[in-house]
Amino acid sequence: MSYTIQNAIAPVEGGYTSVDVHIEGNHIAAIAPQLDPIGTLVDGRDKLLLPGFVNAHTHSSEMWQRGLIPPRPLELWLAELHDFSPVDPEHIYLSALGTAVETLLSGGTTVVDHLVLIPGQEKESIAAAVRAYREVGIRAFIGPLIQDQSLAAGVPSGGHKIEHDPYFWSTEEVLELMRSTVEQFHQPDKGINIMVAPTGMQLCSDALFEGCIELSDRHNLCRHTHLLETKAQQMLAYEKYGCTAVEHLKHLGYLSPRTSLAHCVWLNDHDISILAETQSTVVHNPLSNLRLGSGIAPILKYRQAGVNVTFGCDGSASNDSQDLLEAIKIGTILHNVTDMDYQHWITPRQAVEMAALGGATGVGMADQMGSLTVGKKADLVLYDLKRLSLLPRTDPIGLLVLGRPIAVHTVWVNGKAVVTDGTVTTIDVPQLQQTLFDKSEWQANRRSPSMEDLEMRYRTVMGLPILSNP
Amino acid sequence: MSYTIQNAIAPVEGGYTSVDVHIEGNHIAAIAPQLDPIGTLVDGRDKLLLPGFVNAHTHSSEMWQRGLIPPRPLELWLAELHDFSPVDPEHIYLSALGTAVETLLSGGTTVVDHLVLIPGQEKESIAAAVRAYREVGIRAFIGPLIQDQSLAAGVPSGGHKIEHDPYFWSTEEVLELMRSTVEQFHQPDKGINIMVAPTGMQLCSDALFEGCIELSDRHNLCRHTHLLETKAQQMLAYEKYGCTAVEHLKHLGYLSPRTSLAHCVWLNDHDISILAETQSTVVHNPLSNLRLGSGIAPILKYRQAGVNVTFGCDGSASNDSQDLLEAIKIGTILHNVTDMDYQHWITPRQAVEMAALGGATGVGMADQMGSLTVGKKADLVLYDLKRLSLLPRTDPIGLLVLGRPIAVHTVWVNGKAVVTDGTVTTIDVPQLQQTLFDKSEWQANRRSPSMEDLEMRYRTVMGLPILSNP
Repeated sequence: MSYTIQNAIAPVEGGYTSVDVHIEGNHIAAIAPQLDPIGTLVDGRDKLLLPGFVNAHTHSSEMWQRGLIPPRPLELWLAELHDFSPVDPEHIYLSALGTAVETLLSGGTTVVDHLVLIPGQEKESIAAAVRAYREVGIRAFIGPLIQDQSLAAGVPSGGHKIEHDPYFWSTEEVLELMRSTVEQFHQPDKGINIMVAPTGMQLCSDALFEGCIELSDRHNLCRHTHLLETKAQQMLAYEKYGCTAVEHLKHLGYLSPRTSLAHCVWLNDHDISILAETQSTVVHNPLSNLRLGSGIAPILKYRQAGVNVTFGCDGSASNDSQDLLEAIKIGTILHNVTDMDYQHWITPRQAVEMAALGGATGVGMADQMGSLTVGKKADLVLYDLKRLSLLPRTDPIGLLVLGRPIAVHTVWVNGKAVVTDGTVTTIDVPQLQQTLFDKSEWQANRRSPSMEDLEMRYRTVMGLPILSNP
Repeated sequence: MSYTIQNAIAPVEGGYTSVDVHIEGNHIAAIAPQLDPIGTLVDGRDKLLLPGFVNAHTHSSEMWQRGLIPPRPLELWLAELHDFSPVDPEHIYLSALGTAVETLLSGGTTVVDHLVLIPGQEKESIAAAVRAYREVGIRAFIGPLIQDQSLAAGVPSGGHKIEHDPYFWSTEEVLELMRSTVEQFHQPDKGINIMVAPTGMQLCSDALFEGCIELSDRHNLCRHTHLLETKAQQMLAYEKYGCTAVEHLKHLGYLSPRTSLAHCVWLNDHDISILAETQSTVVHNPLSNLRLGSGIAPILKYRQAGVNVTFGCDGSASNDSQDLLEAIKIGTILHNVTDMDYQHWITPRQAVEMAALGGATGVGMADQMGSLTVGKKADLVLYDLKRLSLLPRTDPIGLLVLGRPIAVHTVWVNGKAVVTDGTVTTIDVPQLQQTLFDKSEWQANRRSPSMEDLEMRYRTVMGLPILSNP
């Protein structure tokens, strides 16, 4: 298919201009004020054309628990999440569809799914997500969420010797799963990319990180992991390594230009210089960091140090939405309270570049997407600027980033139109809604045994008053 | 008109129940599991019924500048805002319509408009807003934004003697405007309430506050003002009064159970105890506080001290949306990073109560609205729980508060249905969009002379490095 987008509003240095764009095959073939029409014509008048954004960190299957887990810090929230994780690959498929649809309708053309696997059905879990993303037609980076230590090991001991149950799989078994996953599912040409993605230093051995580095090098895979999301993890890193988690990951060789690191809340200045030096990418998940009380990531410091930063929604149980524009807005304005000098604050244009080119950089595709550039892949989004939430007319990118727009009109991924006139065309979304409705039920105040087990230890280690009546 | 809402989901202690509701005239006539149908039947199945929220602080005419002002602290942002404020009452009318529509479609049934007046057309400005709110049918509290000192007086001097131009109106002229405004426009029975609303201690004399107190007492009017939004205002209060702004307002007698105070970011513990003692209401505007870098208001402390707190969007040039659910979400989760003990964090149910009953309390109507109570005014909202952003089904209020729903289905204000099936029925919204479009133009990088004039003084007083190339 070919397309000619006519008279779209596109950002240029210091302002905007009206352009036509040719999409041929999977790439942008031409951008100019006036082009001879080819293929399908798309009216770009009063519409803003931007490169697609990257939803650079999420966990699709958390969608089954969104709105449900009460206000809790990560460590306790995680215990409750695990108690009720989906056990049917069909659920993984459906929540991946939902995640893809919400991402597309908020400006994202790529999703990074740090995918929670169903124990015993790991391959089926991955296959379900792959199927969903191919059906919707979003570009996907799937990082099967792996670990080789059991959940309770992720909470600092506070200096006490605590024996944890071994994880039910050995490191070698986990790595073998990853090797065969890459063989079976890694198909960049079809828009499906497998990443290595140990969940984080809090639940992974050095051997697991090293095996992932080896696999990443052999197949040129992106690397992903959670990094220092909470103060408890910062404490744990010192307990485990006697140094910061960043220093340890650098020592292992995990940090690289194709490494993206979710959260990065509790880093010190030396850690930040390591991220800059290794050209690693920080994925900022402002909403889950607030929701879980993790903290405010020092994003302005990262930018001043030259660290690439982009945005993620994080999983829907800690946000609880997959609206990428919401994550971009909050991830942009949140930091104004951390630095009195407004010269350092993120502008709406910078936010767009972080979300698009910054995201592309984080998944090793900066040369292939993330800007309106001839020859790059046609991962493009047209926003309808006539929606009420974007009126009256002022600065289109200011309205998009600082407002609360529901404004996505057309989305192309790899040259294919997957959203037209605000509607996803590749799957039956009303049918998806009905299925999600039918497979769920209203609930409130469920009990989580694992959370209750862990709570007293957590409060003790973190220096919180012990509850007389938990 | 009468209505029977059938089989709606309503919150009860510890969970949810299915209820029918009778609306007769302007009030809730009955709530029970099954009622004999009267009047128009409304299908409440798979819909959540809640009391309407209060958008407890906004400035409607800022909508003309949304998305436009670059990242700046309040004092500089305000200078730019004033340079380009609307000069035609028709603009006031249109932006009040837009503000009302966005508020209704995000769960608000009442708007508090701290209304910026056009110099020389003050009465026309108020009349335009009144007309808009009556046409849309939202309950409105209009506080004409008054002051008796010129804008530059709002920035601390840093100890230097600075002469400011006098304000173009005397205190007595401003008070006379307020007196005749009350006489002409204060019609609570018709849903239009005038408040006294000096813009803030930074631009108002004691005489102006005292005149407002007198007027408020005579007509039982609500009192509103900005309070300690920025660190600069905190400094200014000490310069002006030698004490905190809260201590000074208490001394003047401005604080009371019908006083609502926008922002309240820079208060100390003694100030907080004064708010509790005077039963004043804090209006939390989390998004503008972030956008302008004002700071994070100590909302958890307010709640622990027993201070009533509710939410506002603030004006669209500092947010830049009028989505009340967005303000509630961010205003709820933002504070989790300010207190390690999650026992203090705001739950979704508490957030709903703050937005509904807390809002009603702030405008002196807690006995008349803000809860699902027989005899209260029928200011009610039905949310469609089958929208994709609220699926799969889990806890309805958790989904509503922590997600990013576009889910308003039906809204009643004072017993009248003003939104049906997600569409405002009282005015022609597509026509409004077209008019807003026609009366505006795309723009970027405009210059603000007042901002430029003020910038060096601001940077000096706030201890920021002086720009060599501003």
